[in-house]
Amino acid sequence: MHSIKIEMSINNNCHYSSGITYPQGFWASGICAGIKKNKEALDLGAIISSVPAICSGVFTQNRFCAPSVSYSRKIVKENTIRGILINSGNANAGTGQEGILNVLKMGEMGEKAFGLPPQSLAIAQTGIIGVQMDMNKVQDGLRKLNIEPCNSYAFAKAIITTDTVVKEYNAEITTLDGNYRIGGVAKGSGMIHPNMATLLAFFTTDAKVQKEFLDKVIKEVTDSTFNMITVDKDTSTNDSTFIMANGLSNIEIKEGSANAIQFTDAIKEAFINLAQKIVRDGEGATKFLTVNVFGAKDIEQARTCARAIAASPLVKTAVHGQDPNWGRIIAAAGYSGAEVNVDTTSLFIGPICIFDNGTPQGQNLKEANLEMHRKDVIFNLYLNIGEADATAWGCDLSGQYVTINSEYST
Amino acid sequence: MHSIKIEMSINNNCHYSSGITYPQGFWASGICAGIKKNKEALDLGAIISSVPAICSGVFTQNRFCAPSVSYSRKIVKENTIRGILINSGNANAGTGQEGILNVLKMGEMGEKAFGLPPQSLAIAQTGIIGVQMDMNKVQDGLRKLNIEPCNSYAFAKAIITTDTVVKEYNAEITTLDGNYRIGGVAKGSGMIHPNMATLLAFFTTDAKVQKEFLDKVIKEVTDSTFNMITVDKDTSTNDSTFIMANGLSNIEIKEGSANAIQFTDAIKEAFINLAQKIVRDGEGATKFLTVNVFGAKDIEQARTCARAIAASPLVKTAVHGQDPNWGRIIAAAGYSGAEVNVDTTSLFIGPICIFDNGTPQGQNLKEANLEMHRKDVIFNLYLNIGEADATAWGCDLSGQYVTINSEYST
Repeated sequence: MHSIKIEMSINNNCHYSSGITYPQGFWASGICAGIKKNKEALDLGAIISSVPAICSGVFTQNRFCAPSVSYSRKIVKENTIRGILINSGNANAGTGQEGILNVLKMGEMGEKAFGLPPQSLAIAQTGIIGVQMDMNKVQDGLRKLNIEPCNSYAFAKAIITTDTVVKEYNAEITTLDGNYRIGGVAKGSGMIHPNMATLLAFFTTDAKVQKEFLDKVIKEVTDSTFNMITVDKDTSTNDSTFIMANGLSNIEIKEGSANAIQFTDAIKEAFINLAQKIVRDGEGATKFLTVNVFGAKDIEQARTCARAIAASPLVKTAVHGQDPNWGRIIAAAGYSGAEVNVDTTSLFIGPICIFDNGTPQGQNLKEANLEMHRKDVIFNLYLNIGEADATAWGCDLSGQYVTINSEYST
Repeated sequence: MHSIKIEMSINNNCHYSSGITYPQGFWASGICAGIKKNKEALDLGAIISSVPAICSGVFTQNRFCAPSVSYSRKIVKENTIRGILINSGNANAGTGQEGILNVLKMGEMGEKAFGLPPQSLAIAQTGIIGVQMDMNKVQDGLRKLNIEPCNSYAFAKAIITTDTVVKEYNAEITTLDGNYRIGGVAKGSGMIHPNMATLLAFFTTDAKVQKEFLDKVIKEVTDSTFNMITVDKDTSTNDSTFIMANGLSNIEIKEGSANAIQFTDAIKEAFINLAQKIVRDGEGATKFLTVNVFGAKDIEQARTCARAIAASPLVKTAVHGQDPNWGRIIAAAGYSGAEVNVDTTSLFIGPICIFDNGTPQGQNLKEANLEMHRKDVIFNLYLNIGEADATAWGCDLSGQYVTINSEYST
């Protein structure tokens, strides 16, 4: 086995770089290693930083989490890292002791292939549960994996499963001290309902950030973005979101500074962008749904209520049928666990009021029906109980969703 | 308006009585009052006891509960009752102040029509949310409602919505002191996922029971039956279960006696019977799923875990596709919130072991596949953490379900 020697320029000026290779010093790759059933699909990839990077992660709450999740959780906690090795086609979850050993092996094989020090490579996996990894395919694949400065797209392709589009993001942030960049790549398979799919998201930045601050930012931002297309307890065995920060822009982000506020906002924008792309690419989805809840008692209740509405199968089928069935929306708010008072509750579909302080507005049903025929449907629910607002994003539930998931074969 | 004078024989020996009219002294009726869109469907009905009966109920936890729920909760708490008046086609939920007044009116109109004292009639409603009741139709319907000793079937037909079959139950219980009877009728529209449908269930018995004991029994038995095809927080605005006991058999059920244990078991059997009928008639359902969880830490965790598996859209689509995708089952257990340990977890599909103390049993996949092709599919999950067991019942998720719910029109 030959090891790929990485000689990355500190100022990589690759003209076409996008996604996770947009910030300085991040290279990537994605190839076909034969792990997926479709023998032409990309399924092995890596992001590598030319210099050690701090990394923060949020991981699935599933108690049967995959061994790669436990492994990466530990790696990013204890070390700066150099990269993340990923595969799709096999989640390596529910694979017993052999699965745990295979993750350790993958880490070592990757570090050797890329010429990196031990314990410097995190791992993320997605795909079928309960099948052992074919480690020969990983080994052969690593030989072919050429890390390049403009290869974010290949990496993004290598992590998708039933996604129909590749999901990338990049932005340049201007500060008084100069510019830094943020890049990202994510996969769903896009169902809002979280147990439908592994959600993997990878972000890179060349900003100079402290680990403690980055840990705070990723937690805070995830709660109002990726967690609003998902429900904590329903995460898959492999859900993971990573941010790597390598500091190469030399723009320092100090907690409490104006730069820090701007950085948090920029990361939030990146997260929302990819979270929405995941929902738009939902399995069988034909519509994009935004649920805004205003005036809940506290932020937790606002989020719970918005998520309950966006996740309700009855609401989702009504959105699919383009029916302004507001009773299902109100019912979902009622069972969400959030405090509600029917006499102070109002509901708008788009700009059309359909339930005004507890009284149905039947005369507006025709106009509401037109709003339901848009590709992007918006529900605005006013609880008028407190000061907390939240937004959840979802999609409709179509017969196509059932087809995709019942024809998927073990 | 003429009022129907009820002269029921104390020993009603109606030969063909079944369902809720099986116990002595219970009469029923169901007619078409034109409340449903389908102008031939039955949609108004009543159960009447010839003598005052105690009544216990469990009602929806939905915070936007319908006014008939608040009304009936109060009626059964404070009084013995004479009957329950029901309609389908309109849930009368989300209908503001007018909806509340209409429930009061319905109660008074019913009591007058049947010649009953005030506050002796509970009310249950199901159907569309947010549309005002047409009280003229109720008034006209009440004129036609002939309460008869053998009319359980008509009542059962009058409460169904998208149900495809009528659901009745009856049993005679033999004690050392003589016999008593239990009858029941229920509607779903059968989805296991609780926010899909209003669940209404009505039970009658001529056993002589104390109100306090009946309150205990209904709560305890509901938790292991109807609540195992539903999730507390996800109940609709109108879910209600009633038991009326009129004592006409003169068989006394004293708390703590052998009779009391037998009575609780008999009620449990009645509840399980109708709960399973609801699931089997699930919207679009083609398969019946039983999820047994063994060895959970406590009963709450056992139930949570079993329900999470039976409710998971990914598990349900796998059941529809007849695929032994055990990874989805394990993943649902993992996110359910129940304490699990992968090394002590085993999973059987029917009698076939597919996951043995954390290790996949790939060699059994073919046999497991055969088990998935049965009409009744059984999952047995052994957590081996504690002593608590629970069972949940569900059905598959088919394209037909989406069609039913997206074509339903407001």
